[in-house]
Amino acid sequence: MSTILLDRLRDKLVEVGHLKASLNLLEWDQFVHVPPGGQDARAATRAAIAAVHHEKLTSPEIGELVHELQSRTTFPFSGMELCIINQAAVDHGRATRMPTEFVRELTLAQGEANAHWIEARKRSDFKMLAADLKKIVALKRREAAYIGYRQSPYDALLDDYEPGATSADIAPVFDDLKKFLVPFVAQIGFSPVRPRREILRARCPVKQQEAFTKMVVSQLGFDWNRGLLAVTAHPMCYSFNPNDIRMSTRYEEDDFFHQCFFSTVHEMGHGHYDQGMRYEYFGTGMCHEVSMGVHESQSRMWENQVGHSRAFWKYFYPRLKGAYGFQEQFWGVSFEDFYAAINAVEPALIRTDADEVTYNLHVIIRFEIEKALIEGDIEVDDLPHVWNAKMREYLGVEVSDDANGVLQDIHWPEGMFGYFPTYTLGNLYAAQFYAAARRDIPDLEDGFADGEFQPLLSWLNKNIHVHGQLYSASELVRTVTGEYPISRYFEEYLRGKYSEIYQV
Amino acid sequence: MSTILLDRLRDKLVEVGHLKASLNLLEWDQFVHVPPGGQDARAATRAAIAAVHHEKLTSPEIGELVHELQSRTTFPFSGMELCIINQAAVDHGRATRMPTEFVRELTLAQGEANAHWIEARKRSDFKMLAADLKKIVALKRREAAYIGYRQSPYDALLDDYEPGATSADIAPVFDDLKKFLVPFVAQIGFSPVRPRREILRARCPVKQQEAFTKMVVSQLGFDWNRGLLAVTAHPMCYSFNPNDIRMSTRYEEDDFFHQCFFSTVHEMGHGHYDQGMRYEYFGTGMCHEVSMGVHESQSRMWENQVGHSRAFWKYFYPRLKGAYGFQEQFWGVSFEDFYAAINAVEPALIRTDADEVTYNLHVIIRFEIEKALIEGDIEVDDLPHVWNAKMREYLGVEVSDDANGVLQDIHWPEGMFGYFPTYTLGNLYAAQFYAAARRDIPDLEDGFADGEFQPLLSWLNKNIHVHGQLYSASELVRTVTGEYPISRYFEEYLRGKYSEIYQV
Repeated sequence: MSTILLDRLRDKLVEVGHLKASLNLLEWDQFVHVPPGGQDARAATRAAIAAVHHEKLTSPEIGELVHELQSRTTFPFSGMELCIINQAAVDHGRATRMPTEFVRELTLAQGEANAHWIEARKRSDFKMLAADLKKIVALKRREAAYIGYRQSPYDALLDDYEPGATSADIAPVFDDLKKFLVPFVAQIGFSPVRPRREILRARCPVKQQEAFTKMVVSQLGFDWNRGLLAVTAHPMCYSFNPNDIRMSTRYEEDDFFHQCFFSTVHEMGHGHYDQGMRYEYFGTGMCHEVSMGVHESQSRMWENQVGHSRAFWKYFYPRLKGAYGFQEQFWGVSFEDFYAAINAVEPALIRTDADEVTYNLHVIIRFEIEKALIEGDIEVDDLPHVWNAKMREYLGVEVSDDANGVLQDIHWPEGMFGYFPTYTLGNLYAAQFYAAARRDIPDLEDGFADGEFQPLLSWLNKNIHVHGQLYSASELVRTVTGEYPISRYFEEYLRGKYSEIYQV
Repeated sequence: MSTILLDRLRDKLVEVGHLKASLNLLEWDQFVHVPPGGQDARAATRAAIAAVHHEKLTSPEIGELVHELQSRTTFPFSGMELCIINQAAVDHGRATRMPTEFVRELTLAQGEANAHWIEARKRSDFKMLAADLKKIVALKRREAAYIGYRQSPYDALLDDYEPGATSADIAPVFDDLKKFLVPFVAQIGFSPVRPRREILRARCPVKQQEAFTKMVVSQLGFDWNRGLLAVTAHPMCYSFNPNDIRMSTRYEEDDFFHQCFFSTVHEMGHGHYDQGMRYEYFGTGMCHEVSMGVHESQSRMWENQVGHSRAFWKYFYPRLKGAYGFQEQFWGVSFEDFYAAINAVEPALIRTDADEVTYNLHVIIRFEIEKALIEGDIEVDDLPHVWNAKMREYLGVEVSDDANGVLQDIHWPEGMFGYFPTYTLGNLYAAQFYAAARRDIPDLEDGFADGEFQPLLSWLNKNIHVHGQLYSASELVRTVTGEYPISRYFEEYLRGKYSEIYQV
């Protein structure tokens, strides 16, 4: 009987999953393909489907099935079955706190703001987006009120991306990190070592950029039979299901490494996670990321611990130097100069281009601002001013214009308040996971130097990807690494790597 | 009160419209982007969304609103309002005759057959598709039984594409046409005139093919702000709403005109119709094609009456000869040779490449076969044999292999039985509409020769596109042309044009 009820619940969850997959396609396609004149209509379609998705997720039948299954304490459910039931309870519970009409309104506002953001960013004019953002912020404050929270309304939003985390937990971790990072960046600034960053600005034709990037991504184990790479203004990775993963990148002839290469390796890390889940559990918590922090740990690990390492480039640098389109540009550039250049630390304006050391300061700035915004301590009109002041304070850079400042990210127009801190949590998790992987696989980096990346991917598949939401983020970290999340590994990683490069 | 009820109905129809738009996106994206490993999952998503769409369309609330509104005979509804109400009644009525579970099953089978068709066609092996096709045919026979019919189960399916038409009406029209076409093709075959078709096989780089085609499509009035052109194995046109039209084409270096150019102009004709509808009526009968026959009349008119005409090429041929990538190939090729080549008549294997004269024989073959299949006079295993025999009988060609025979079209695996005859109805409507346009716009073709195509597009917009389903197909033809549909115009058009070219 319990099995029948569980099957019935799973059927319902699969239906909700397909609606979510359709929503993701509508969103992905809005970024990649919808023509300018079709943007508003697309926003309307997204809103209508979001409402139907919400109706289905909040259907009383799911509530009753979950209630019934959770009350059967004597039945020996497996861990996976419990994960499916309990996660359904969480998702259904969260959704039922919001009216469907509100979800429709919010999704419509997001879709419209998304379209207007593209224009505002192009013209570098924050004012063009201010009205949309005000609407979004008001709606997200309402969402927080619907969801409920103990201390800060921001926590209600954060919980959607990093379940169980609160800003009260995160703020001290980020403060400590800031206390480590700000002087560490200054130390690096005074170092006599000056990597020759300009060698990375060599011109390479787009076709060859694409060929080299795809070759690398293949070698790193991405399954092209179940995914693709498209072109967008802002690199992304969307999953419709484990068998259909869409990544995107961008190409600029004179900025291969930051616009295209490392972004793609980052998105591929997300793709690995999504492809590593099990389609047979589609729609349930067993086929869903633990948290966005864990998701980012996968992308950041492949981008940084792997993609910016000596071992990685020991294998790929000779291949880059031999690749059509790159040969002349890198002729005579030594391995050490190249390695230093890709790891150069320099405070700058754009988060997605930032080096590993300054990156988290970009995130901390956004976390502090969005928290204050949701809590009502600042308002939308204050954003450019507050943004520019914090960039000066933490990174010592002057923001030239809104496009390179407060308008650079899609997250706020898309209503993704509470997402940014997961990038830094991801960096912390990544360092801790990676240290464990090195312990478990002793010759890990020797393998990289020989082009062998499958051992790491298999380790991640087995230890992280297949588990879905079986564990919470901190339980997962403890299970895999033996310790609860701790920032020590990340600080050691940065200090070890950059002390060597910069001799500080 | 009636206004309130109508507004409520329209809200419901808009929701159904957004679900339909999502389904169309899922389908379009399956053709254009879904990777091989993701095809089955996509079929499952399409099936789930089709079921939700069906649930919403058959919701009792729509039924009650329609019933209530239709009974208010004293309220002065406008023609447009009546169209919205009555069309909702038709769509709701048809849908309620089928169980949602059946719709899910059918859509799943279509999505899977679609994926298998791609493989079967690649390997030219009908047997690889036979099991899928049997499932689809059985389901479509069930659909016909659910819908109901007077004479033939085929009529229940045909009605979905050409409302009001029956095979008993169509068969004699097609028989007459066959009686005209078969000897006319033979006459042409014996003509001493031999157009130099090979000049069209000149090699042109894909980039230049794309540039020239887009230039022409722009000149013909396609609004790129509300649409795009992608690449697929089979040219298509999808509408998500009037502001977002997706066309596709294909490129082969040595077959520009048939693979790419004329297909694109054809799809653009569909796109003109879809862009010419009014978004403010989205989801209702006022923003929907009258019938697929009328839809095809638009694509076939732009492709043939316009795109294969002397006047059209008077404007574009000098531009083709001057275009980068085409200059050398067409150097020294006279206008008359070029005009004869693009209008060359030759029985061949592929429908989409067929000339205007033999084209309808391809359609008639498919109509006869699919009608017999649905009526149970033949079975799926008979298809290759019956296909090849009819190709020999009507067109005198021997089918070399399944890929160039029975596997060439997507329609049957996609379950689109009843669609094919609308191509020929479209040709008949097109000729009749075009004759009316020439009467209404006296210097129409002189305009073409000067690059002016807006007068025709405006005429079509005003007389056909904006009306949605306000009229039935035959009423629309009568309103626009002064006569009910009649095949005389098409026969006159063919006879006039080809007697001149072939001197027969």
